[in-house]
Amino acid sequence: MKLYEQLTEHIATLIREGALRSGDRAPSVRELSRNRGASPATIVHAYQLLEARGYLQSRPRSGFFVSNAWRGLTGDRRASQPARGPAQLDVSNLVFDVLEAMRAREVVPLGSAFPSPELFPLRQLARHLALSARQLDPWSTVEDLPPGNMELRRQIAQRYLLAGAEVLPEEIVVTSGALEALNLALQVVTRPKDVVAIESPTFYGCLQAVESSGRRAVEVPTHPRDGVDIDELERILDREPVRACWLMTAFQNPLGATMPEGARCHLVRLLAARDIPLIEDSVYSDLYLGEERIGRAKMFDRKGLVLDCGSFSKSLAPGYRLGWVAAGRFAQDVCRRKSMTSLGTSIPVQAAIASYLAQGVYERHLRRLRQALKSQQAAYIASLQRHFPAGTEWTRPGGGYFLWVELPGAVDAIELHRAALEHGISVAPGPVFSARKEFRHAIRLNYGHPWTAKIDAAIRTLGDLARARACG
Amino acid sequence: MKLYEQLTEHIATLIREGALRSGDRAPSVRELSRNRGASPATIVHAYQLLEARGYLQSRPRSGFFVSNAWRGLTGDRRASQPARGPAQLDVSNLVFDVLEAMRAREVVPLGSAFPSPELFPLRQLARHLALSARQLDPWSTVEDLPPGNMELRRQIAQRYLLAGAEVLPEEIVVTSGALEALNLALQVVTRPKDVVAIESPTFYGCLQAVESSGRRAVEVPTHPRDGVDIDELERILDREPVRACWLMTAFQNPLGATMPEGARCHLVRLLAARDIPLIEDSVYSDLYLGEERIGRAKMFDRKGLVLDCGSFSKSLAPGYRLGWVAAGRFAQDVCRRKSMTSLGTSIPVQAAIASYLAQGVYERHLRRLRQALKSQQAAYIASLQRHFPAGTEWTRPGGGYFLWVELPGAVDAIELHRAALEHGISVAPGPVFSARKEFRHAIRLNYGHPWTAKIDAAIRTLGDLARARACG
Repeated sequence: MKLYEQLTEHIATLIREGALRSGDRAPSVRELSRNRGASPATIVHAYQLLEARGYLQSRPRSGFFVSNAWRGLTGDRRASQPARGPAQLDVSNLVFDVLEAMRAREVVPLGSAFPSPELFPLRQLARHLALSARQLDPWSTVEDLPPGNMELRRQIAQRYLLAGAEVLPEEIVVTSGALEALNLALQVVTRPKDVVAIESPTFYGCLQAVESSGRRAVEVPTHPRDGVDIDELERILDREPVRACWLMTAFQNPLGATMPEGARCHLVRLLAARDIPLIEDSVYSDLYLGEERIGRAKMFDRKGLVLDCGSFSKSLAPGYRLGWVAAGRFAQDVCRRKSMTSLGTSIPVQAAIASYLAQGVYERHLRRLRQALKSQQAAYIASLQRHFPAGTEWTRPGGGYFLWVELPGAVDAIELHRAALEHGISVAPGPVFSARKEFRHAIRLNYGHPWTAKIDAAIRTLGDLARARACG
Repeated sequence: MKLYEQLTEHIATLIREGALRSGDRAPSVRELSRNRGASPATIVHAYQLLEARGYLQSRPRSGFFVSNAWRGLTGDRRASQPARGPAQLDVSNLVFDVLEAMRAREVVPLGSAFPSPELFPLRQLARHLALSARQLDPWSTVEDLPPGNMELRRQIAQRYLLAGAEVLPEEIVVTSGALEALNLALQVVTRPKDVVAIESPTFYGCLQAVESSGRRAVEVPTHPRDGVDIDELERILDREPVRACWLMTAFQNPLGATMPEGARCHLVRLLAARDIPLIEDSVYSDLYLGEERIGRAKMFDRKGLVLDCGSFSKSLAPGYRLGWVAAGRFAQDVCRRKSMTSLGTSIPVQAAIASYLAQGVYERHLRRLRQALKSQQAAYIASLQRHFPAGTEWTRPGGGYFLWVELPGAVDAIELHRAALEHGISVAPGPVFSARKEFRHAIRLNYGHPWTAKIDAAIRTLGDLARARACG
């Protein structure tokens, strides 16, 4: 365990055990740095982690104070305990039944997979789309077929540089959204019946991809705060013929979990030693809510085994359907697979996003978006605290826009989903995130929509429905 | 055989045997109608077929004259004779090697799969894209997920009505181009290892889809003028456990063949009697070069077994990547499959094409496009006649923009493809259209690019290369 991790654990324990109480001022960074013989940067790192986990709160110009926001958080609970051994999946129809039931516009979208489209610069994008379409070189309709628009791939490669990963435009294949990227990656690195290691719980799109392509899944225990349990993963690799991993190492959907950087690096080395490809879904990685960007597995990829799948759908341009995969040594295979299955991604759309990115305003938009998500997260959690029954626990993710809420007693999430729909509210029930339809006591709540009284009322209704079931 | 078919055969024989000679005036429609006791419409139908096959030529206000354009046509030759029995395919790498070699802009694109992008109203489309993006309802980014934009599906359904098929918006799923539609259709109606009946030769995208999805292909003998041999198909259905057919009944790629309407109707009934789905690739169906629209199998579909896959890429908006499938009873399955694999098709692009279609100028554009293709076809064929060695034969399709050219002697099409590339000219060699890499003596030539001296020179160079090999 690294020094900052030790320090983080230690201070969290002090707070949980009451040695430091809510409202207390935490030791100053300089003071602690001197006492512990650690650099101020290490202390700041630990304090930021503690803030992300609800133990501290920073006040401008005053330093850090002890907070009680960690109460109710699932953060310190243990990892999930999925069944051992690979399984053929059969969850897709449940997923569709749930998703299709909640698409109507008038439903309060707490179960939605999308943030509010109103958080995005759609007017600006429209200008770039208009410009790009007007100036479209007719021959680009042929030349920008896979791997895709060169300027766009250059821009994406530059963004990897920002994130600390070395990715060349040549290994990037533009896709129609991240879901296509993920499916292509899976098809390229595995064959039917192969075993794929996935998180538990995981994104239902992963379950559907594994199921519909006839692969088998083995679930890795996953911690609601720290993500995949790397020791358990290693034991699984020893035991099962795993041919690929499909993971989200940051802001995992649905948990919001983020692997500590050391664990992420360890993960990449572990897989590299066995030549196992890692399909990383990193669609939320620009949506970090702390001060610092969180890394990607791709940063540690020395053998070209990481297929990093990204998208502009969650961070810039919902509905434009533009994503990519930085596919390492599999780039040509992915490119050919894409050519075979959908030929290409819309040429004017590729050009429009390249043009927007070249303008240099993307980071400014992202800062505003992250600020909005951060304040929405606080408001939604406060509402949970007010309205949900005692014993409810939730995550407080460092990024993305999902809370994972574990309900007390005998609450059945699918029943709650149905009852909520009758009140015009959607929630995503736990079983849609599980290879074996587990997590019947949990729901995923979307905080990607601006805070309003209507949402507060919806959360209160949900809380009432849950309370009635928890007691009954 | 119907009356117009009998008449067509009879007159063609008279011409081939010299009873009617090039330049002779054909009997007037009224005269023949009276003599044969057939309606004038029947005679006109027969004459149009004869014109399409190069036996007659109409001159405005003067009636029909005998033509010798049928000489050199493969039209009267027999169908292909593929091997019996299903096969696992292994042609995809050859296809990619060929396709990737010829993508450079400076290559004369006789081997290209695309018509010239300059034939399309890209400026007008840009206006609609700009307008649609500006007016985009943010919530449509969620609501226009599969099956897709309702207005667009309404417009597509109306176009089916024009074509004589009853298709409701509800059975249409918008896709990112026809290739995605075809792949989704195949995945929905078959399982791995299932046998799919395909044409011989066929579109290489079909071969790749069958190969990459682990299906097996059984090839149906296909006539260069009349398409699939329906009697042979029936024998195959009796013999093999065929789970789906993937065919193009009009302007088949690469042959340009079109099934007679009676055969198309027979085909649909034959498959309906056995509950076998028909995946029809009808991307060229708006590109008929005669006076009349050619039907689609969908017209005869009473059981919802025909999955008709269309696209705007060949007729309106190359590079926009917008297609669809009218999936009959499989619509929900296709919609779900699409949701799982690429989530959705670009929302502003869907809205833009819907907006263009609503303007009512599409038919005018299509008339101009067809006129251009028709005169290009004549120019390319004339150039073939001038420059290619004796014994060369070619098709004269009633639509689309491909000629299938069969070379004399020992010419090897893959060698010719390589030699042509060294001269900066692409051709599509026969083996890429074949499950067993056959048709080594044939090439597909694209006449979708406006006629220029440069193209004439390229065809002369090709002819020289072929001649050198035919003799050598």
